[in-house]
Amino acid sequence: MPQVAPGGTIGILGGGQLGRMLASAAAKLGLKTHIFAPETNAPAAHAAAAHTAAPFDDTAALETFARTVDVVTLEFENVPVAALEVLIAAGAHVAPGPRALAVAQDRLVEKTFMNANGAATAPFAPVDDLASLGVALEEIGAPAILKTRRFGYDGKGQTVIRSPSSETLSDTWEQAKAHAWKEIGARPSILEGFIPFACEISVVAARGWDGAVAMFDPARNEHENGILRRSTVPSGVSDETIARAHEIVARVLQALDYVGVLGVEFFVLKDGGLMVNEFAPRVHNSGHWTHEACHASQFEQHIRAVCGWPLGNPARHSDAVMENLLGADAHRWREIAADAGASLTLYGKGEARTGRKMGHVTRISPLTESRR
Amino acid sequence: MPQVAPGGTIGILGGGQLGRMLASAAAKLGLKTHIFAPETNAPAAHAAAAHTAAPFDDTAALETFARTVDVVTLEFENVPVAALEVLIAAGAHVAPGPRALAVAQDRLVEKTFMNANGAATAPFAPVDDLASLGVALEEIGAPAILKTRRFGYDGKGQTVIRSPSSETLSDTWEQAKAHAWKEIGARPSILEGFIPFACEISVVAARGWDGAVAMFDPARNEHENGILRRSTVPSGVSDETIARAHEIVARVLQALDYVGVLGVEFFVLKDGGLMVNEFAPRVHNSGHWTHEACHASQFEQHIRAVCGWPLGNPARHSDAVMENLLGADAHRWREIAADAGASLTLYGKGEARTGRKMGHVTRISPLTESRR
Repeated sequence: MPQVAPGGTIGILGGGQLGRMLASAAAKLGLKTHIFAPETNAPAAHAAAAHTAAPFDDTAALETFARTVDVVTLEFENVPVAALEVLIAAGAHVAPGPRALAVAQDRLVEKTFMNANGAATAPFAPVDDLASLGVALEEIGAPAILKTRRFGYDGKGQTVIRSPSSETLSDTWEQAKAHAWKEIGARPSILEGFIPFACEISVVAARGWDGAVAMFDPARNEHENGILRRSTVPSGVSDETIARAHEIVARVLQALDYVGVLGVEFFVLKDGGLMVNEFAPRVHNSGHWTHEACHASQFEQHIRAVCGWPLGNPARHSDAVMENLLGADAHRWREIAADAGASLTLYGKGEARTGRKMGHVTRISPLTESRR
Repeated sequence: MPQVAPGGTIGILGGGQLGRMLASAAAKLGLKTHIFAPETNAPAAHAAAAHTAAPFDDTAALETFARTVDVVTLEFENVPVAALEVLIAAGAHVAPGPRALAVAQDRLVEKTFMNANGAATAPFAPVDDLASLGVALEEIGAPAILKTRRFGYDGKGQTVIRSPSSETLSDTWEQAKAHAWKEIGARPSILEGFIPFACEISVVAARGWDGAVAMFDPARNEHENGILRRSTVPSGVSDETIARAHEIVARVLQALDYVGVLGVEFFVLKDGGLMVNEFAPRVHNSGHWTHEACHASQFEQHIRAVCGWPLGNPARHSDAVMENLLGADAHRWREIAADAGASLTLYGKGEARTGRKMGHVTRISPLTESRR
């Protein structure tokens, strides 16, 4: 268990906005950060003490990196597991560890893990070719969602399969299957059943090297085109639902022997039941509101957890609504900056491509209730 | 008037904790920072995108710096005015400007400026040698404080002159004067009368290039050995006193054509009267609580002001008490980190020398009243 005292250095794999916000949180605690990311113009590097611009399969660069930092963490769940293994072999403390990353990177492994740990998920079946897609469709029914097992995010790498009709461009099941299989690039996938949920919530939680756990209040999330648009706290779900969500997250943290912050997304069913959608082994977009509304933000919490510090106080002092600025939304920065009720965060990215996460806005208001 | 859009770069003169907190605030707004500071291991550089390690009289380095940034500001009031003039000659926008800096750097000029703008100060008289010290003592009386005109901070460069006695190591006025004159290094000074104040408060305020002004609620400050120990908000002074303090600060901002954040320290007299103690042309230690308790912190406010953005909302959403961690206080970091009511900030400094500002702790609580 590392004990990284003030003045120490945290290595961060990945150079995006999550790394940038982690770097600022580390600076507040008197710690330095060293970003390891392939891109030369990484948003995180602009707020960090050092940057190694090298690919994740550059073993020599990883070994040098391991020697210059006191602990390694990540801000990007698609870092190759092999990179973590190189770092560990070179003597680095790495949190979260390779197992959590491996589980998160493969939807089939992830859902199987969740079910094995008593967390319900949407019904799913593995798909490796057109034949197994047919078997899966018979089992799950339509409509259903075909998702690549690996490297999907923000709605990418997935497609909906509906009953064949002229509207869906498929007159037959064979056409529907072939179209979907092509859409996702004919890669190893899973077919997931549609869940008629009442709402989506997420729990952002932390676990330390000593097993201590702290959870933020859940956020209610709204997505558009597969991308998070808005998170609202309090979420409006019942205390009982919150307690069950926290219990599931505690089991996941324990089963993964997880160290750091993670985010778990849930579907809340109409009868109040919970299904895990997915989890991310890192700070989470739906936890950005904690920066403005909690005593310790998710970013500070992650730094504390991986450095062996006592976990921070996750209680919120305010209610909050966080909205993502996607693509051209960021061009409204000046108008948002003039809004007295808005706290603006921009990620320092150059090109405002459609759907790209450019920043977010948090609006806080006085605390209305202690939990929900 | 510069308009620094997201992605732009702010040059910061000085590499200490104030620059570090400014750099993190800039990063939140999608801006980059470039630190110009003589020291190679500057706390601010660890949170910034770039660092030029050069002395403030390195004209070539200043000229290069001016070309790489969109606006220049400072975090250290003892930057030579000549450095600002080099930057301006090289085409840089500089805020605050050389006049504000020049006024702040010389206690005689500063107090004369305050009086000329209708702000009362302690009685004072210039001292250039032992003879003028005698004249000043006759005018001001004893006890009084002899302070160097330049480069004093945190109680350094000042000494108290009391009536001669065996306890003060002076049996005669000649001895008392000679002792004090030697204590402050026989440098151009002022003698200030003692003010029997009820309390000390400070106002942190911002002014934009367009003349817009925003003020934070005043903090009540407690000093120990000339160093700020604690700032408390609400300050407990009357609404009328706050209004008068804000009015004085507005006049100071206007008279200096000031751009950026400044801090003005006041003595509140027993009859409610106000005297300006001093001002600092930068973000201020007594405003650190704004990070946890206000919608926009003083650091964000300064970045907005110098970049030509709309000023942020200075309203506080919580009450706050900020305590400095001086010297060995910082060794208690782990204990403070475990305190659920404490928000810890450490500055990334190496050696915890006695009296050195190593960090601070802010404790927030629900808002009790809107202003005081």
